[in-house]
Amino acid sequence: MTEPRYALHIANKNYSSWSLRPWLLMRELGIGFDEHLAPFSPGSNWDEFRRFSPTGKVPCLVDGGTVVWDSLAITEYLAERHAGVWPTDAAARAWARCAAAEMHSGFGELRNQCTMNCGIRVRLHAISPALQKDLSRIDELWNQGLDRFGGPFLAGEKFSAVDAFYGPVAFRVQTYALALSPAAQAYADRLLALPAMRDWYTAGLAETWREADHEAEARSVGVWLQDLRAV
Amino acid sequence: MTEPRYALHIANKNYSSWSLRPWLLMRELGIGFDEHLAPFSPGSNWDEFRRFSPTGKVPCLVDGGTVVWDSLAITEYLAERHAGVWPTDAAARAWARCAAAEMHSGFGELRNQCTMNCGIRVRLHAISPALQKDLSRIDELWNQGLDRFGGPFLAGEKFSAVDAFYGPVAFRVQTYALALSPAAQAYADRLLALPAMRDWYTAGLAETWREADHEAEARSVGVWLQDLRAV
Ligand SMILES: N[C@@H](CCC(=O)N[C@@H](CS)C(=O)NCC(=O)O)C(=O)O
Ligand SMILES: N[C@@H](CCC(=O)N[C@@H](CS)C(=O)NCC(=O)O)C(=O)O
Repeated sequence: MTEPRYALHIANKNYSSWSLRPWLLMRELGIGFDEHLAPFSPGSNWDEFRRFSPTGKVPCLVDGGTVVWDSLAITEYLAERHAGVWPTDAAARAWARCAAAEMHSGFGELRNQCTMNCGIRVRLHAISPALQKDLSRIDELWNQGLDRFGGPFLAGEKFSAVDAFYGPVAFRVQTYALALSPAAQAYADRLLALPAMRDWYTAGLAETWREADHEAEARSVGVWLQDLRAV
Repeated sequence: MTEPRYALHIANKNYSSWSLRPWLLMRELGIGFDEHLAPFSPGSNWDEFRRFSPTGKVPCLVDGGTVVWDSLAITEYLAERHAGVWPTDAAARAWARCAAAEMHSGFGELRNQCTMNCGIRVRLHAISPALQKDLSRIDELWNQGLDRFGGPFLAGEKFSAVDAFYGPVAFRVQTYALALSPAAQAYADRLLALPAMRDWYTAGLAETWREADHEAEARSVGVWLQDLRAV
């Protein structure tokens, strides 16, 4: 038996959108790792998370003596060591990296107004113009990728890192019933049906931690319709 | 004579921090490109920038039929085609990618409270705890890179993409006189002294466009001490 090479530090599956990216990527590509889950505390997680991550944030990948502390850097680190992280076709790869990097630094309204909370269902009070701009751009981007590279994944036939970067968006679409075009909605459903996405979701629903800030964020934006989480 | 292969779309040199990253990288590495500068308009640049960039944002690199629309994706695109974008040493490269990706998605307080405006000098009314947290992290990160890889650049002897990603921070340090440890301040000065940084700065100072939103942002945070720009 060989030990898994990597340790991946993450936070609550119900809440932690950035943690989901490398977890989903590694699980879908069959890259073994030991999961270390540190649940969020109210206020700051600095002291707790700084024990393993220099930014006090998750995710953080540890490979022997190497600490890789950002989800996009983790992706490139894995891409140097494992096949399938990015598409093999150069044009698809360039496109996939653009879409992932756009997600990494953008979509602030979606992130703030629709924080990831896998286990609840919320009807938003309103879709602000700024939120609609983010949603329209995601819809356009997903349609472009699916059209140009032929689907069923964003950059072609195979699941790759760009799909992992939009995994958290699929959970937000589900939680807040965000309206998308049929092709984009079908893609979100395809993500939600992936084995690793289902495992993450099931584990998130089973969590009994409730972190006040995350709960308040989701409560402030709309009507809480359903809570599917374990009590 | 060979034509430059790349077209790089950027905005005002005085203001556009994201544009500076690939511009600085390509200039310091001697990668030829045609510069296309579209100045910011008050309010939205969407209609103007959408002509060349799918996000309505700059920078955007065009390589024949390929459009690469995000500064970090441009970096990885160039890294596949040119030597020296990332350090050759694997540990230094992993660290450099983490530091660049951390910048790409983080440091929101520094970005918002100290918007890049190369040609002015401002004394901040206050350093909020949130801004101080960003500054302390940058200081720590720079010191870590310089110590671990021996300097004079962040990931070792040679300028690489991670330095390009912190180029805009050096201009902010200069404009707002942000306090750093001696080693971090010396590194910022080293960036400011690079030929490409000096060229960018000189061109920014010579610009006579004034965009109201950017000007108002810089005016709202402190006392305006000096304006070195052409009139
Ligand atoms: N750039 C980082 C961002 C990570 C991030 O913001 N993580 C959040 C959780 S999803 C976090 O750890 N927050 C803890 C805190 O800010 O206290 C990445 O991509 O990994
Ligand atoms: N993720 C993008 C962000 C680019 C960005 O935000 N650019 C700003 C200028 S520095 C912009 O074009 N803003 C125009 C607007 O938002 O109207 C990148 O790294 O290239």
